[in-house]
Amino acid sequence: MDGTSIETVLLQILVLFTLAKIGGMLCERLGISSVIGEITAGIVVANTILFQWLSLDVDLSVFEIFSELGVIFLLFSVGLETPFSELRKVGKTATLVAVLGVVIPFFAGFTLIMGLGDGQKEAMFIGAAMVATSVGITARVIKDMDLTHSIESRVIIGAAVIDDVLGMIVLAIVVGIAAGGSNGIIDIILVSATGVAFVLLVIFFGSIVLPKARQRVSDRRSSVPEDDVVCVKKRKFTISPLPLAIIVCLSLSFAASHVGLAAIIGAFLAGMAFAEFKDKWPCDEEFQPINAFLVPFFFLFVGMSVDLGSFGDVIVLAVAITLLAIVTKYIGCGLGSLKLGRGSANIVGVGMVPRGEVGIIVATIGLNMEVVSQSLFSVVVFMSMATTIVAPFLLTWAFRRKYGVCPTDSNAEVQES
Amino acid sequence: MDGTSIETVLLQILVLFTLAKIGGMLCERLGISSVIGEITAGIVVANTILFQWLSLDVDLSVFEIFSELGVIFLLFSVGLETPFSELRKVGKTATLVAVLGVVIPFFAGFTLIMGLGDGQKEAMFIGAAMVATSVGITARVIKDMDLTHSIESRVIIGAAVIDDVLGMIVLAIVVGIAAGGSNGIIDIILVSATGVAFVLLVIFFGSIVLPKARQRVSDRRSSVPEDDVVCVKKRKFTISPLPLAIIVCLSLSFAASHVGLAAIIGAFLAGMAFAEFKDKWPCDEEFQPINAFLVPFFFLFVGMSVDLGSFGDVIVLAVAITLLAIVTKYIGCGLGSLKLGRGSANIVGVGMVPRGEVGIIVATIGLNMEVVSQSLFSVVVFMSMATTIVAPFLLTWAFRRKYGVCPTDSNAEVQES
Repeated sequence: MDGTSIETVLLQILVLFTLAKIGGMLCERLGISSVIGEITAGIVVANTILFQWLSLDVDLSVFEIFSELGVIFLLFSVGLETPFSELRKVGKTATLVAVLGVVIPFFAGFTLIMGLGDGQKEAMFIGAAMVATSVGITARVIKDMDLTHSIESRVIIGAAVIDDVLGMIVLAIVVGIAAGGSNGIIDIILVSATGVAFVLLVIFFGSIVLPKARQRVSDRRSSVPEDDVVCVKKRKFTISPLPLAIIVCLSLSFAASHVGLAAIIGAFLAGMAFAEFKDKWPCDEEFQPINAFLVPFFFLFVGMSVDLGSFGDVIVLAVAITLLAIVTKYIGCGLGSLKLGRGSANIVGVGMVPRGEVGIIVATIGLNMEVVSQSLFSVVVFMSMATTIVAPFLLTWAFRRKYGVCPTDSNAEVQES
Repeated sequence: MDGTSIETVLLQILVLFTLAKIGGMLCERLGISSVIGEITAGIVVANTILFQWLSLDVDLSVFEIFSELGVIFLLFSVGLETPFSELRKVGKTATLVAVLGVVIPFFAGFTLIMGLGDGQKEAMFIGAAMVATSVGITARVIKDMDLTHSIESRVIIGAAVIDDVLGMIVLAIVVGIAAGGSNGIIDIILVSATGVAFVLLVIFFGSIVLPKARQRVSDRRSSVPEDDVVCVKKRKFTISPLPLAIIVCLSLSFAASHVGLAAIIGAFLAGMAFAEFKDKWPCDEEFQPINAFLVPFFFLFVGMSVDLGSFGDVIVLAVAITLLAIVTKYIGCGLGSLKLGRGSANIVGVGMVPRGEVGIIVATIGLNMEVVSQSLFSVVVFMSMATTIVAPFLLTWAFRRKYGVCPTDSNAEVQES
């Protein structure tokens, strides 16, 4: 490896990482998700002299890998918080909220883009990008307001779990169709079936086969006399959870990519499967530092892909899509939870609004497949950022309207000490 | 980013990481450092059909970056365990052990290679690769034998701390001279001075200026009345330790590389500086998962750089260098600790033998600078692996000779539960 090149890459990594973290910290100070700051840092880098100064115009491939690994590990972590077993516990209301919150935004987005005369595949991607709820923002506001045990909070978290799985199935279908090339109805059914089959197969394997196998092994172990257990333990081939988790995550990501799905679908399912074994192989805490290093590169990359130059032409569409995203999610999820009463439906509807990173990830895949245009990509990024920024304010208002409480700063202090 | 290429890179990362971890685990089972297994995995990949199958012959640049980042973070972690303040606590005996253990192997290696008719710069690199002790292996054996509080253990750990710093200064001088091009005596003095100045400047800054500034800040804080403290705390601009550590580490690595030193020297010094603030910004635990992911790529890369084909020609030299490395370190460190008695000098001499990763890192830098030949690189890798494998056996023998204890398996069990 020649000295200059490695030195340049070191400088690139240093400057990009530092800018992302500064952007993230500034946003956190303002009470906004740090993701917004990281994307903004990427927009700044791409549209200033920094881009040439860092020689990023010469070669971006290292950052493509970093960003891809970052988003794979990010989705694995999201999966880790979505164990299969949770899916069964989710109530009817949460299921209804999730389904309506997926179907209505998808068809609204799809119809709007088709109506504007764009292609069917592009419209599908925009619809899919409007589906996914990023519940992280909502969960944090709820925690800050000490309302984790409210009925609305439980419905929102439950719905978000199903929402994630539905979102992955929608993405699997959309990617499958987009990659299919031909538009024949049999082709579409075939690729959709592959996507759905992959997701269901992993869910079945992870939620039924693996836990049963595990139960059988532990049953057999406990029938061994005490003295022998030590012996068995010593001879046992041990592996630390982190490398195993990385290997499983990369394997399923590669498998998903290989059958024509998005790699992140595999990563997400790997995370869900691993979540079942959290007690035996805890790895969520160990994944955080890796994510802290790699994930900012994904959002930087998203920011760097936003074309500010052409954004002036689509600003009206961006605002329209944003309003549509808010209204359809609010109506879908509000309708789903109406039987809890109007005040609660108001909270649930508002709480599902933030799209955060998931919408952006979907749009990035479309951009990389050259199905989503540069300008529509910018529109989705704008929509995701705007819904994420606006959600905490709406949610605080909705909670106050029902419960009359003020957000407390208790969590901010715990973090600092 | 085009789909195929990302998919291929995913497969490369998956297969290489899995092989490295399997190799590492097998070695750990055999009671050998996992580093040996990771290097062996690299040798296997480079010399089998796997290399073509993974398309590694097409493009290795991603793994160059991974391996460079891995070794930078690794040296940062080594630095984290070597706080500046420890340097002052180290006694006279440890200092003598370190100095003699650096000087004698360096000149022995230098003289041998010069005597074989190779270049002066190459001889310097081989000398420098024979200097550094990897105390990790020794520390683990000592811990397994429950002898952490023995006088020999304290001397070895103390000497290793100085040894690391001396090794970095030697490396700084060697890299400076090798990069200098011209061999004029003034040039050599100049680049050596730059290297030493960089190291001493950072040590001075990290051990005197920073702690004093910190003391002053905390003095001022404690003079603020209790009620105001909360207020100050809230307004304070907080940053989590991990991103700060990454930024400091990459900054100093880039700075070192920019002034013509090895990047890892900067990383090591950054770690030492950060170690002073361990109580305020603990980050060693958070670095472990990042290292668990990235460091194997460095050792894989080392293994992949070993040319098995030409190794037959240099096997005699490899054995000779290995014996020289063992004998000179044993004599140097034994002499340095002779006043503790013969039994203790025996233990200290043997305990400083393993070269581990540090010797390999030095040789890798020489290889990348095209100063060290492919075959001499393989020789150094052989020497580092051999001294590392042989050290635990020698150490167990030396300890038994003096204390008559048997190594216990107590630690092995704690790890498994």
